[in-house]
Formats: sequence, structure tokens, C-alpha cells
Amino acid sequence: MAEPTPKQEYIIGVDLGGTKILAGVFTQQLKCITTTKLSTKAERGPKAVIERVARCIKDAIDESDLDFKQVKAIGLGAPGAVDSENGKVIFAPNLGWRQIPLQKQLQDELGVPVVIENDCNACTLGVYHFELDNKPKHVVGIFLGTGIGAGIIIDGKLYSGFNRSAGEIGHMVLDAAGPKCACGNKGCFEALAGRQSIFRKIQGLIKEGQKTVLTDMLGPDLADMRSGDLRKAIRKGDKLVEKVVEEAAEYTGIAVANIMNLLNPEVIALGGGVIDALEDEMMGIIVETAHDYAMEGTDTNVQIIASKLGDNAGIHGAAVLARRQIK
Amino acid sequence: MAEPTPKQEYIIGVDLGGTKILAGVFTQQLKCITTTKLSTKAERGPKAVIERVARCIKDAIDESDLDFKQVKAIGLGAPGAVDSENGKVIFAPNLGWRQIPLQKQLQDELGVPVVIENDCNACTLGVYHFELDNKPKHVVGIFLGTGIGAGIIIDGKLYSGFNRSAGEIGHMVLDAAGPKCACGNKGCFEALAGRQSIFRKIQGLIKEGQKTVLTDMLGPDLADMRSGDLRKAIRKGDKLVEKVVEEAAEYTGIAVANIMNLLNPEVIALGGGVIDALEDEMMGIIVETAHDYAMEGTDTNVQIIASKLGDNAGIHGAAVLARRQIK
Repeated sequence: MAEPTPKQEYIIGVDLGGTKILAGVFTQQLKCITTTKLSTKAERGPKAVIERVARCIKDAIDESDLDFKQVKAIGLGAPGAVDSENGKVIFAPNLGWRQIPLQKQLQDELGVPVVIENDCNACTLGVYHFELDNKPKHVVGIFLGTGIGAGIIIDGKLYSGFNRSAGEIGHMVLDAAGPKCACGNKGCFEALAGRQSIFRKIQGLIKEGQKTVLTDMLGPDLADMRSGDLRKAIRKGDKLVEKVVEEAAEYTGIAVANIMNLLNPEVIALGGGVIDALEDEMMGIIVETAHDYAMEGTDTNVQIIASKLGDNAGIHGAAVLARRQIK
Repeated sequence: MAEPTPKQEYIIGVDLGGTKILAGVFTQQLKCITTTKLSTKAERGPKAVIERVARCIKDAIDESDLDFKQVKAIGLGAPGAVDSENGKVIFAPNLGWRQIPLQKQLQDELGVPVVIENDCNACTLGVYHFELDNKPKHVVGIFLGTGIGAGIIIDGKLYSGFNRSAGEIGHMVLDAAGPKCACGNKGCFEALAGRQSIFRKIQGLIKEGQKTVLTDMLGPDLADMRSGDLRKAIRKGDKLVEKVVEEAAEYTGIAVANIMNLLNPEVIALGGGVIDALEDEMMGIIVETAHDYAMEGTDTNVQIIASKLGDNAGIHGAAVLARRQIK
């Protein structure tokens, strides 16, 4: 009698964000076969969010016509300071979480090994594993979305720092006399080049009476404006949006130069929603400004690239972490 | 017949700077028994400078009433990008050097094993070895002198980066709209808080007609002004100097916060001539500003300390490197 063919095993990568949960089903060869999305609804509290993560994962499995028993491990990227060794989210202002034992609670919910990591670290690991074939020793990933964060790989390994909060590049001060940041300080990178700061600047200029096609596209309040709308406006020849995006790109270039001067990695990878939508408009300026501001010799052969993984960088990195659990 | 008592063995630590060479004789237990100093005279070229380093070392040995045969290894910290594996100074603008095989030339000159390292790395290693008894995993040393540089220790080891130029914190932009830096950019940390920038700011204020006791102390041109003169002026109640030094301390605090947010080390040690002379005036402001600008959670239990090694941090770190050669 022939033995039954063993069912193939799968792993899950999850990106838990302040506004949405993204789950991906991956083969053991790390090919992504399905992704599903749910809103986070952080205001309902940690227990409800963790149940939503579990639901998002189950939905992804169902979408893939698989049996949950085929899932061998789950990796998850969460915002804020994450203690991956002890499986805890130490502090995540975007979620309003402190000391949440996310790993244990999700394991209890699903009965499958779970590993958690900071979201930007997961994104950087995703870029490292899937996009950097030569496996450089030192890599910094910078992700521009609603906020701005970074992941750091040193000697091929994720670096988290003493309080597990390394990579808070969004709050690196670039312009001490600059605009106020949500963190309370002034002139942080995020307050100069994050999506919210770009939107706020455009809204301020409209109030001053300047014209942009964005108001024709989205109405006078620019309701539901997205990074892609900025790209559309620029391609329609909108000078106001072009100027604001150029300034954000220049500050991003200065931030990249600061990283080259300070950490001197081989690769600096940029990603996140803003870069994804505005790569053609921003990358040229970022690269030029970064080389302008880098000390002679620090930038030689350093690659500054845009990740092609877009919104999926996090689930890819989380899947890499999950696979390590079963190998 | 009794065997002759074997002569004790010694090691040498050297700090090669843009203006002076400092050499220290150390026991194998890393106790410093003598130091000697020579001016660098970089304008005479690498060969002449390397001969002066050799002379400075021989002078230190002679001062200690020792025989050069008792020297077992030499460690040396040099400015700029240093490839310690291949023993080369890649690029040192302060010395006007490019691709100088310093290790080999000094070994040929003295017939003793030589190891070289970046000067700020050597200083940080000196602080780490002699001042941080609990041996933290991640440490950043920031040294404020004529210029500003840093050394980075990650997982207990010096980190140099891809082009051996990590730690160029002096050219981290803190104020994109700030004053011009010698590197050609604007608002670098060094242009805001380095000794030259402090001196320039004071001279500018005097030209604007403001009063300071420094002109009584040093004459109208402030000839040969040193960091210690600033301390004396402040202690005499000089408000102009106090304000300029306070501003430099605030920018230093912002730089420290950037490091806490980005690299999140356990210890940030400050040193160099400016801190050495103005520790009491600056450290309180630096620590307060750094905690103000740090993201919540990143600065918990992070120590911000002033090194007590002063000018001798470099030779101490270099001696640690030298001892590793013979162990």
C-alpha cells in the first residue's frame, strides 16, 4: 500500500502596522503565494488586534485552499521597540501598546511557533534576503511611510541595540530649527520627509493661496490623499507638489549621507509607501544629495537603492524569520 | 650560577594627530609609565612624519630608562580612514595622506610589530577598556577637539564599516540651514560644536561689538586661544562665552540623541580637548538635551559619561591594541 503523499508545509509572514495587518503565505522556498489584508483597529486594544492578526492569517490560508495544519511557523513584524528574544512588544506608540507578550498570545491563539521582530527590521531583512544577492555585511534599510523608520544589519545580522530601539531614524534631527515633529521635538527627519509632513506642507501652501491640481483631483480638503496622488499631480506638471516632494527628497538625501558618514554600510536601501509611489521623482535627488553630503571616501562604491518589494517587504522579512524557526 | 633576571617587556601606544604625536610607554598590565610629545609637522610629508613617530617612541623609551629591546609591540591611532587589517592609512585629510602603508613603514623603521587603527576608534577602545568595567555590548565614543569624531563598538568589537570610515559623526548634519563646515556642507555637528566653530563664533560676536574678558586675557585677536581659556572666562562670569559654549553643548546633546535613537548603545562616552576643558560647563546641558530629544524608551538606562582619560584616551586604546598582538 502506497504511503499518502505528505502535504506540503507553509510559513506565514505578517506585517502588523498601525492601520493595517498584512499576512502572506509562503512556501518553504519563500515564494509568496497569497496575501490578505485587514484593518488593525488598534483602538479596540491588544486582545482584539491579536485576534485580528490570527483571523488575517487564517483568511490567507483559506484563500490559498490550504489546511491550517500545513502552517509550520509564523513570523511577524510589529512597530516600535520589540524584544524578539522574549517575544514582547515593549513599546509601540502607533498601537498604544506597552509590554504586550505578543508572541505567546499569538502562539496560544494559533498553536504554531511564532517569532516577532521590529517591523523595519523585518522589512530590511526582506530586502536583504530577496534583493541583495551578494549578501553585503552591513546594510541599512530606510522606510518612508506615514512615519519613517530604519532597520540595521551589521555583519549580516539584525542589530537592535540596548533597548531594542535602534533604527529610530525618523527622529534623527536634521534641521534643529525645522518644523515641529509629532514626538515633540523640532526638525526630525520624519517632520521633514514623512508622508504626513509632505501632506501638511502642501495643505499649508494651499491655505497661503497657492494652486495645485490636487484640489481638482481630491476636493479642497484633499480628502484621502495618498502618495500616489502626488505622483499623478507631478506628472500633470504640478509645480507646487513637485517642489514639496523635491524638498522631502533632499532631506532624505541628507539622512542617507548621515548614515554613510556614521555607519558606512555597503548598501542603503530605501522603501515604504512614499518611495514606492515616488521612486522616479525622488531617487535621483536622494542619491545626488547623499553623495554631496557624504565625506570624501565614505561613499565610494556604497549602493543607494530603492527596494522593489514595496508594501510586501515586511511580510517577506517576517517569512525569513519564520523559516529560521523550522530549520 | 643564577640566570639573569629577564628584563620586563613593554608596549607602546601612540596617538598620531594633525598637530601632535603623543607616545606612551605601558607595562604589560597596561599601566602607563611615561608619555612624550612631538609636533607632527605634517607639511614635511609622510616619510618625515613616520620618522618623527619613531623618534617620539624612542624618546619615551629613553625617558623611561628602558632599552628599546624591551618593547614588544606598538599600537597607533591615526586620523581618517584606516585599514587596520592591511595596515594602511587610506585617506587622512588632516595629514594630507592617501594610501600610506604606515604599519609596514613603521615596522621597518623600528623592527617591532605595529598595529594601526583610526584615532577615534583607539580613543573609544581606551575608554572601553579603562573606564567601563561592566564591559557593555554597544558603546559610542564622541570626541570633541579641533574637529569631532566618533568610535563605535558593537558587540564588544570596534566597528569600522565598509570603507573603514564609520564614525564620521562630525559631518552628521544637525542643522541643514546652519553655518558652513570645512567639508563644504552646511550645519555639520563639527561646524556647530567643534573647537574651531566655537572660536569662530566668539570672534564673530566680538566683531559685532560684543564684550568678553577673553580680549583682556589674550589680546584683541584672541591669539593662541585654547579650550581652557573658555573655562576661565566662564568662571569669571563672561556671559558671551557662556552662551556660545551652551549652544555648542545643546548641539552636542542633539547629536547624542541622534545616536541614541539610531544606534541605541548602552554607553555614550564624550571626550576630547573641548569636553576635557569644559566638562562642568557642558555635560549637564548635553545630558539634559540628549534625554529631551531621545524617543521615549530609547534612552532608558543609557549612560552618557565624560571620559577621564582626556588627551590620553588614544594612547591607552592603542596600547590595548598593541597588547593583543603579543597575547
